[in-house]
Amino acid sequence: MPHDFDDAIRLSPLGGHRFGGATHPAYANMVGPYGGVTAAALLNAALQHPDRLGDPISLTVNFAAPLADGGFEIEARPARTNRSTQHWLLQLTQAGGIAATGTAVFAQRRDTWSAPEAVMPADVPAAATLACAPVDGRPGWTQRYDMRFAPGETPVFDGRERPHSLSRLWVRDEPPRLLDFASLASLCDCFFPRIFIRRSAPALIGTVTLTSFFHADAAQLTAQGDRHVLGSARALNFRHGYFDQSAEVWSDAGQLLASTHQLVYYRE
Amino acid sequence: MPHDFDDAIRLSPLGGHRFGGATHPAYANMVGPYGGVTAAALLNAALQHPDRLGDPISLTVNFAAPLADGGFEIEARPARTNRSTQHWLLQLTQAGGIAATGTAVFAQRRDTWSAPEAVMPADVPAAATLACAPVDGRPGWTQRYDMRFAPGETPVFDGRERPHSLSRLWVRDEPPRLLDFASLASLCDCFFPRIFIRRSAPALIGTVTLTSFFHADAAQLTAQGDRHVLGSARALNFRHGYFDQSAEVWSDAGQLLASTHQLVYYRE
Repeated sequence: MPHDFDDAIRLSPLGGHRFGGATHPAYANMVGPYGGVTAAALLNAALQHPDRLGDPISLTVNFAAPLADGGFEIEARPARTNRSTQHWLLQLTQAGGIAATGTAVFAQRRDTWSAPEAVMPADVPAAATLACAPVDGRPGWTQRYDMRFAPGETPVFDGRERPHSLSRLWVRDEPPRLLDFASLASLCDCFFPRIFIRRSAPALIGTVTLTSFFHADAAQLTAQGDRHVLGSARALNFRHGYFDQSAEVWSDAGQLLASTHQLVYYRE
Repeated sequence: MPHDFDDAIRLSPLGGHRFGGATHPAYANMVGPYGGVTAAALLNAALQHPDRLGDPISLTVNFAAPLADGGFEIEARPARTNRSTQHWLLQLTQAGGIAATGTAVFAQRRDTWSAPEAVMPADVPAAATLACAPVDGRPGWTQRYDMRFAPGETPVFDGRERPHSLSRLWVRDEPPRLLDFASLASLCDCFFPRIFIRRSAPALIGTVTLTSFFHADAAQLTAQGDRHVLGSARALNFRHGYFDQSAEVWSDAGQLLASTHQLVYYRE
């Protein structure tokens, strides 16, 4: 039986650079679908395009308008194909209007001098020793992830402003699913909005733009299998209706799989 | 007399969403122009577009092909205009081929609960107490910035690998120029490639994609005037031909003006 995630990002070729898809109730958010799955569907159009070269290294998605539940069309057009890189233009339309725009870069990687610099947080206990966070009262998409927050870092809505918005969690698809570029792209948006953490309260928010860098190649994703990855997210600044949010996603072997940056609209 | 930067990003309306520009010798890089000025020219097309709403909050530029010295055409098309946000599609073509793609988000900000989270590095002495870095043997564009590195953080090419790539500097346009969104967008690309810092050696590199978030509004930029801003840059990971690089840009009063993230190709 296919995973709900595969159903949610499934696209039918419509000819040329066009693909048809539809929102999936399993990934419903407060309004419309969870943005991570929209990002994954946009990436998936390039992934399954017959002219694809290499694997994704970068994805930017701009959420231009709320997506309604139902069908949509994605255009994925290779803007430029070089010897080892390929630049994509992505666009999602619904009822004739542009709901999301985006760009992606694909590349064939080579063996080079390599060196990690950031180090996985060492003080988060193994996923197996932590409890899965309850999802009562949260939007449907959160039930599609098994989230295990670091001790003391489970979001609490007690209204007490905290000095920072850093929090870490182990996370995987629920039910488990083998990690690939599409699910990693989706996972990059799974971090609770940092204003929830900083203010210990919910707020009306919407991601405006999301950029993810894929440090992992396909072999590293395969090696990760369906086990939990570690995520660490924080914000730099909340100001006049917008805050930024950055996160790293680590394999359980301590390799950086992705780093991701978004700008989020908020209203009090 | 106009500043070279204004000449470098000057665009002539060509009708519709099209604008004509040209590379400027003052901002020459190793091959073609400095990417920061290309990013600023793309943003400038949206900034001077008659349909513009609000100020930029986000800019993504993908460098798809090397730009040759000479003329180019930019298309800046509003993809979606909402009540308080506007999404832009940007594209730079030269000799009929796509050399850069991009997206930008503009917004009208509102007064809201606001809170800084990241704090400006406190251990970098004031710009006035530091020497301007020599530019001998460096590409032309570096002479268009007055860079003053924190003590001990001037890039040194002694070939000794360092444990990290963090470095900080005060920087402003040279000669001085009042800070605005276009010059801030350009400045977001002024940080030396982190592989130079990490390996203490030059390398063949090229920025593939660059995303900048503008935390500042026009009033904060005006308040900064033409004085030095503080930049702090680092990488998370160098792997198989690509590394990421993130930086913050601070006003001299300690306000976060921009945060910026790029993915860079490298070859040994």
